[in-house]
Amino acid sequence: MSKGVDCLMKDEGRIRNWLKENRARGARLLQLLVRENSTRGNESSAQAILIEKCRQLGLTLDIWEIGGDELTKHPAYCCDRSSFAGNPNLVAVLKGTGGGRSLILNGHIDVVPVGDLNNWDRDPFSGWIESGKLYGRGTTDMKGGTVALLMALESIVATGVKLKGDVIFQSVIEEESGGAGTLAAVLRGYQADGALIPEPTNMKLFPKQQGSMWFRITVSGKAAHGGTRYEGVNAIEKAQRVIERLLQLEKDRNANINDPLYENISIPIPINIGKIQSGDWPSSVPDKAIIEGRMGVAPDETIAAAQQEMENCLQELNEQDEWFVLHPLTLEWFGGRWQPGKLETSHPLMQELSKGFKQVMGKAPMIEASPWGTDGGILSSVGNTPVVVFGPGITEVAHDANEHIILEDMFTASEIIALTIIAWCGCED
Amino acid sequence: MSKGVDCLMKDEGRIRNWLKENRARGARLLQLLVRENSTRGNESSAQAILIEKCRQLGLTLDIWEIGGDELTKHPAYCCDRSSFAGNPNLVAVLKGTGGGRSLILNGHIDVVPVGDLNNWDRDPFSGWIESGKLYGRGTTDMKGGTVALLMALESIVATGVKLKGDVIFQSVIEEESGGAGTLAAVLRGYQADGALIPEPTNMKLFPKQQGSMWFRITVSGKAAHGGTRYEGVNAIEKAQRVIERLLQLEKDRNANINDPLYENISIPIPINIGKIQSGDWPSSVPDKAIIEGRMGVAPDETIAAAQQEMENCLQELNEQDEWFVLHPLTLEWFGGRWQPGKLETSHPLMQELSKGFKQVMGKAPMIEASPWGTDGGILSSVGNTPVVVFGPGITEVAHDANEHIILEDMFTASEIIALTIIAWCGCED
Repeated sequence: MSKGVDCLMKDEGRIRNWLKENRARGARLLQLLVRENSTRGNESSAQAILIEKCRQLGLTLDIWEIGGDELTKHPAYCCDRSSFAGNPNLVAVLKGTGGGRSLILNGHIDVVPVGDLNNWDRDPFSGWIESGKLYGRGTTDMKGGTVALLMALESIVATGVKLKGDVIFQSVIEEESGGAGTLAAVLRGYQADGALIPEPTNMKLFPKQQGSMWFRITVSGKAAHGGTRYEGVNAIEKAQRVIERLLQLEKDRNANINDPLYENISIPIPINIGKIQSGDWPSSVPDKAIIEGRMGVAPDETIAAAQQEMENCLQELNEQDEWFVLHPLTLEWFGGRWQPGKLETSHPLMQELSKGFKQVMGKAPMIEASPWGTDGGILSSVGNTPVVVFGPGITEVAHDANEHIILEDMFTASEIIALTIIAWCGCED
Repeated sequence: MSKGVDCLMKDEGRIRNWLKENRARGARLLQLLVRENSTRGNESSAQAILIEKCRQLGLTLDIWEIGGDELTKHPAYCCDRSSFAGNPNLVAVLKGTGGGRSLILNGHIDVVPVGDLNNWDRDPFSGWIESGKLYGRGTTDMKGGTVALLMALESIVATGVKLKGDVIFQSVIEEESGGAGTLAAVLRGYQADGALIPEPTNMKLFPKQQGSMWFRITVSGKAAHGGTRYEGVNAIEKAQRVIERLLQLEKDRNANINDPLYENISIPIPINIGKIQSGDWPSSVPDKAIIEGRMGVAPDETIAAAQQEMENCLQELNEQDEWFVLHPLTLEWFGGRWQPGKLETSHPLMQELSKGFKQVMGKAPMIEASPWGTDGGILSSVGNTPVVVFGPGITEVAHDANEHIILEDMFTASEIIALTIIAWCGCED
């Protein structure tokens, strides 16, 4: 690095001071973002806020509607959305002076549906603040992380620190449905020497990420009048058999995981039953049940190998159960699919991030494997970019009612990220 | 009776001959009716065919839109339909000359949804004929029965036989959803000395009818990201516990049934799990599951007593399961509710019908208890009208894909019904 240690320390101090003085800006930006419901297909208004923010920071903007053959025919493309019209991807670049390492800062703007509204204490899109927490769908997963990125960037711009390497800020769509937004960014040419994704890790560092993909199992029954239900075969009861078998498969697969990074995680690679739908009339025996869910993939496993395990498991059921012999279960892999990813804990990006963490927190970070897939799988496997996932959100409340983020963590994360950026990219005297 | 036995026998012979010669008319009428999809809210076109048929037979027509406070505030009213506009009830009376017993002939025009279309060999509303069977939604339940009624009436009108008692033909809506159509007819003043409902009994006589009602159970879970599913509580898994408990309740309730009329029925009063819906995202742990179904009520049990048994059962679960203690199951009785009904096997209506059956079939009828509720519960409990259920449809294929009726049975039933009408109502020389 061309900059003396003293000088770097001075920059760090100014940046951290700026961040401490401008916390209210960060909270306000997050509240603004949460108030725009950016569930799938509705991302444009939240993106608009980020676009304007990046313009104010003087970044070079790239705003585009994803699509086209290169994307949709790519082997890692996995998406059942028919149109991306009007809901753009955003990449905004802070160009470096040259000679430094480049860094992608990646966040997704899409949020999952709110679930049962009755479980929320208030409007999920109001962004209310209580006891230092900001509430709402997407606060933790992952608008809070995105705000931490932008505050870090703003602190660098505002304090006049000149980076050598490029910083490539990305606000992508479609992370929750399989990563088409990040894939589009990679295919547009955005690669870097490292990437940071502030998904909700409870301030832990996740160098390894669980992959995952969605499955749909169709269970056949035989319809009958409910009064003579013994003349039919209830697809709901047959689906129960399938669910039990899937839970057994989950148990078997997790028994084989020995990675110490998963030591504190009760189910490293879960099989989640996310949806079931069966029947259209209370007095009829339902003749079809559809189960949808998400299967986790270990960081050192391939998606294909995990899929094969589930296929074998259903094949067994199709051979063992008399009804399924004649009316076999069908399995589809649809919608979301997230590549697993891993980085050695000794990688320089892990080192710089750990150093920044220690500087701000006064202790070493906890390092674990991520319990979910992120766009990091695509960044690393397709974009050849080393990825660490680290963010201020709370893993446990992601996708839950009353989702929230501890604002203090978001502010602290922005300091850690700012220090990591200047250390990674390097800065001019 | 004022008519000599010889004369009656002559009438019977003419009527049966007419019916044998006019079978094609009956098949054609059924095909026409099946081709009109008369699922709930779409009954008008099928009713139009029956209205015109009754006009041609010279019956006195009463066509009306059901509704009004007398109906909707009646304790036996049980309906979640918001509007009956444009889909009328039909009652058509063949006025007797006086001095005879009156008879209600009741059929419902509504049919249940088709379920999964892929399970049908052909369009469920095409009414295709193959190997003496006519196929389609509603053939067995119960447009075939209605055609048997109308053919019987037409044979009487066509042969010039003059009845003493009134015959009150009814084609009602809403049977499949709780009987609001028949209740409306009762409240409009239609009562009689007896009633015959040709629901699909496989040509058996059902003097007792299972009552039933719909239930909806809401199961709470706790949402979480599917990758950390151990942070949530899966409503689908909790719903499985509920379904298992309901199946146990079904077992317990049926162990107490000793009525010999139920001897050949494997589950006299079933609890049918007709519907389940949970989750809106494969990668989220669902926080709510809704189970809907139908609970059977024994002929000598009250609806209230059966409801209490299910309420107690869920109350137990709410006390035993740690999760349900804090997040109790809720139970609603919604939509359909059918009163149970019973008639002594020695009742004169049973006698006359059995005699007619023996005359046509050359053997005594099988007598059983009905495995489902019918509008007979309302006719008997609200309308004080003794009811027998007897019809040509096939119990096993009601509500199923490829529902069909054996045309021969429909023709035979119309002969039995015609003989029962003239014996019950009496006829002039």
